Amino acid sequence: AASGDPLPGRRSVDFPVAAVLPAGGCGERAGIATPKQFCAFLNRPLLSYTIEAFERVAWIEHIVVVVAKENLHQMMDIIQQFSHKKVTVVLGGSTRHRSIFKGLEAFREQSDGVTLRKPEVVIIHDAVRPFVDEDFLLKITVAAKDQGASGAVRPLVSTVIATTSEGYLDHSLERARYRASEMPQGFLYDIIYRAYQQCCETDFEFGTECLHLASHYCGTKAKLIEGPPTLWKVTYKQDLFAAEGIIKDMLSHNGCVVAGGCAPSVQLACELQKTLEARSMQVDVISGPPGSRAVLVSGTWNFIHIAVDSSCLDDMAKLVKTFQDSKHAVLYPVVLILVHLNLQPQCSVTERMRALGAIRSLATEAKHGNILLYGILLSRDKALEQWDESMENVAQIIAALVKDRNPGLVGQLLVA
Amino acid sequence: AASGDPLPGRRSVDFPVAAVLPAGGCGERAGIATPKQFCAFLNRPLLSYTIEAFERVAWIEHIVVVVAKENLHQMMDIIQQFSHKKVTVVLGGSTRHRSIFKGLEAFREQSDGVTLRKPEVVIIHDAVRPFVDEDFLLKITVAAKDQGASGAVRPLVSTVIATTSEGYLDHSLERARYRASEMPQGFLYDIIYRAYQQCCETDFEFGTECLHLASHYCGTKAKLIEGPPTLWKVTYKQDLFAAEGIIKDMLSHNGCVVAGGCAPSVQLACELQKTLEARSMQVDVISGPPGSRAVLVSGTWNFIHIAVDSSCLDDMAKLVKTFQDSKHAVLYPVVLILVHLNLQPQCSVTERMRALGAIRSLATEAKHGNILLYGILLSRDKALEQWDESMENVAQIIAALVKDRNPGLVGQLLVA
Ligand SMILES: [Mg+2]
Ligand SMILES: [Mg+2]
Repeated sequence: AASGDPLPGRRSVDFPVAAVLPAGGCGERAGIATPKQFCAFLNRPLLSYTIEAFERVAWIEHIVVVVAKENLHQMMDIIQQFSHKKVTVVLGGSTRHRSIFKGLEAFREQSDGVTLRKPEVVIIHDAVRPFVDEDFLLKITVAAKDQGASGAVRPLVSTVIATTSEGYLDHSLERARYRASEMPQGFLYDIIYRAYQQCCETDFEFGTECLHLASHYCGTKAKLIEGPPTLWKVTYKQDLFAAEGIIKDMLSHNGCVVAGGCAPSVQLACELQKTLEARSMQVDVISGPPGSRAVLVSGTWNFIHIAVDSSCLDDMAKLVKTFQDSKHAVLYPVVLILVHLNLQPQCSVTERMRALGAIRSLATEAKHGNILLYGILLSRDKALEQWDESMENVAQIIAALVKDRNPGLVGQLLVA
Repeated sequence: AASGDPLPGRRSVDFPVAAVLPAGGCGERAGIATPKQFCAFLNRPLLSYTIEAFERVAWIEHIVVVVAKENLHQMMDIIQQFSHKKVTVVLGGSTRHRSIFKGLEAFREQSDGVTLRKPEVVIIHDAVRPFVDEDFLLKITVAAKDQGASGAVRPLVSTVIATTSEGYLDHSLERARYRASEMPQGFLYDIIYRAYQQCCETDFEFGTECLHLASHYCGTKAKLIEGPPTLWKVTYKQDLFAAEGIIKDMLSHNGCVVAGGCAPSVQLACELQKTLEARSMQVDVISGPPGSRAVLVSGTWNFIHIAVDSSCLDDMAKLVKTFQDSKHAVLYPVVLILVHLNLQPQCSVTERMRALGAIRSLATEAKHGNILLYGILLSRDKALEQWDESMENVAQIIAALVKDRNPGLVGQLLVA
């Protein structure tokens, strides 16, 4: 729900809000050459997932991304490739605090006359925390508006200990009294900007905590809000695996079965829906003219297209074109599975080889548009219990393809 | 290298060492019903991966796993299914410290007369940190032997803040002065046992830090050792994705190509090796009689079996049997890929359907033994540049199968 239509009891945001995402870090901690915000999974850099999380919130006007000079080109490419609309790119400074300050200055009048509207509340968030949701952003924003500053906190996962200079235990902190300070944090723009204007070189050089600046220079004590575990910071290689796992899992929970007009196709669609739902996949069945844009409203990135005999490949090509035209696959790879129901067993071998050739060339083309096309062959010449087994096999293959989204297997014709 | 053969400059362990793994937690933090140590990926519970990390260290004699009563059966099943040899199971108490104390008591004389040899150094480690390696265990053990206590630490990822009782920022800690206390920790057995004997109900009920007990009750200040990021604690659902990603990545870096006796097979094996190594996969080529146990010394879980024409399926069945007999697939699923080189194009369609039927029934049987069997069909009737493209396709398909290890696609015959 956008800001115009708040949920009952939910505060609406009727003041300007913007976000600043420092993305200038050099990633040395991840043990990989690429700064982690630019590491990609499912063909997209982490940073773009974070931008998307802010872009889909209707009441956030501008997203200022602060990058190092050497990443500027890459950043402009990302904006173009993933059609980001609300982003302004700003060059960072030599430390985190200098970069955030530069991000905040994007809302002051510029020498070139271009100015972003000054927000009342500004949200500061790390480019490497892609899973922040609208509800939490709302909480942070409302608390910042009311209290001047707000920040996400989490319970400490480990005990925190103070060490002696020789590397021995000095003492351990009482875990319950402390919290980990995470992101996002929210501020009245005027407060955090004033804090940065006043802070000293030591803060700029060694500081890490925006809440501390607001407290120290403006006397504003932040309201702390407990955030979900998904706010964690993608720091190490294993965190990239975790982020990829979350996205793949999120994409695999629902699907849309597109049935052709004929009776066997519609019947199979309904059977498949039942079998997939028994595996906890939420499935819509739609049946419309080939290539209809009706498929796009389903809110899924998984499509199962049912085709009977050889009618299918033209329809499939139309469906691929629909996705290409709609940009539905820009943010996430679309999985498109052709389930080819073969009613005439005697021509199955020849049919199959022909279908394979056609599906491979279509798959190669589709892959350029981030559409992953696979085929499944299902024969009707079966006794009833074998048919049930085949349906289970189809569901198992679909679940496997949807879960892994592996581009290395596109164009294959699998057998159920 | 085991303790009998230490690396130059490496301390050898000539005293008894044991480990205690508290695994009694109830996992409410993971947001999933199963306690996280019992959550499985690649068909194996997390806890078993952690046990394996200790079991493969030759100088660790005993591993005491402390579980809640309701998980006792499951624990015994895990020991049997994954052939764990050094494990003694002990029932836990109502808190972490009570459980660890019960684990330590396993080394005292028991009423039933069964006693594990008392270790000089005991390592305490969380069941949900599966990626600890022998080198780090050695550092912890040697430091514990020399200093009485030792523990892994990591830099703080987030700023730690103290909160007011109303939920506002009180102050933030200076990050550089503190560390996160992680596991493993090592102790002279007599010291940590004495600390537990003396500690009070408040410690047992609310304490979390073994280092604190050794310090408070025995005056032993632990030596702190900086550990790698992979020591992190699997706590949330995203951490399970991370753990699965690490294991799958680790399994995908090398492979073994098994060539049949004939010249085209050996030639293809060498071409494949080159193409896969260009994709950073380390590949051995071996050629021996079908079903030879020579494949088992390769130290990989990925096998590519090359077969020419129809000779292949018997050999493949022998290879499957070799893996079944050797228990090579007990800990990790073995990926077995049959690359079927078809020299006679004119019979390819029929051949292919026959091969498909045979491969599917063999795959179904192999899957019960944790062996994932897939087929790739490669035809020779090609111009040279098409052949190069086919080799790239084979490599791409192999990389995809090895990376995902998806059991939903076994028995499929893919086309390169
Ligand atoms: Mg900060
Ligand atoms: Mg502890």
